[in-house]
Amino acid sequence: MPREPVSIRPIGVVRNGVRDPRPTGWESVRSDVILRDELTDLLEGIDSYSHIIVVFAFHRVPESELRERVRPRGAARVPEQGVLATRSQLRPSPIGLSVVRLLKRRRNILRVEGLDAIDGTPVLDIKPYFPNYDAVPDAGMPEWARALEGTGDPRAG
Amino acid sequence: MPREPVSIRPIGVVRNGVRDPRPTGWESVRSDVILRDELTDLLEGIDSYSHIIVVFAFHRVPESELRERVRPRGAARVPEQGVLATRSQLRPSPIGLSVVRLLKRRRNILRVEGLDAIDGTPVLDIKPYFPNYDAVPDAGMPEWARALEGTGDPRAG
Repeated sequence: MPREPVSIRPIGVVRNGVRDPRPTGWESVRSDVILRDELTDLLEGIDSYSHIIVVFAFHRVPESELRERVRPRGAARVPEQGVLATRSQLRPSPIGLSVVRLLKRRRNILRVEGLDAIDGTPVLDIKPYFPNYDAVPDAGMPEWARALEGTGDPRAG
Repeated sequence: MPREPVSIRPIGVVRNGVRDPRPTGWESVRSDVILRDELTDLLEGIDSYSHIIVVFAFHRVPESELRERVRPRGAARVPEQGVLATRSQLRPSPIGLSVVRLLKRRRNILRVEGLDAIDGTPVLDIKPYFPNYDAVPDAGMPEWARALEGTGDPRAG
């Protein structure tokens, strides 16, 4: 079992003016993902993809708030889940990831739509989205999760 | 711009007997993702999903091998890309992620299929795959990338 922590220097930051986490309404939020200046050339070609994966840090969750189990979106009718069986931010590793639409690139700035991360969130990585590799449209999920679709951010659980 | 490195303690390790990176043939590889013992309860409910996202560390890439640009899968006819516009492991942050089929769970061990990570890879996080949130089957990609589909691991670039 690897013991050494992995240290990751953020490559950028989220700017969108959203000060606090919100349970819903992220779909239409537009954000700038601003990368460190010296990484500009590493983005060459990214704008030939319609979607990217943004990997970011949950930077405002204190260790004392981490949970073993959560009730997704607080829904009383939903069975409690182990936190690793959810997208909750109360997980042991402070890593979030979202698939978002890439609207445009200007130098080291990526304008994206639908990123559910607050202003100031450290960005750890971005990746082009390959539908043949990343999309599993018929992936199975439990009935209760299907019933919750569209009722809010899965990360709010 | 956030300056503090984010320190992530691995939650587990990949076991599959694959000693070295390979350009192709991962689809049928079965791996055990072995989580730290004390995280067993945090997995409760994960096996009601058919697919999970495995976030892992590229732990064998020395800093001296990082690149600004790469030629995906070494294909001469493909334009050089900024490394952040690819899934190459030669990227500034040593983070990989794959969507894989979850075959079964036994306590703290997840048996998965198609994980393109070598034996001993530190696992940073796992997440259930939500098709309504993670799948964008019609996402756009450049023509040359479409032409390379099925010719190998996008990470080999």
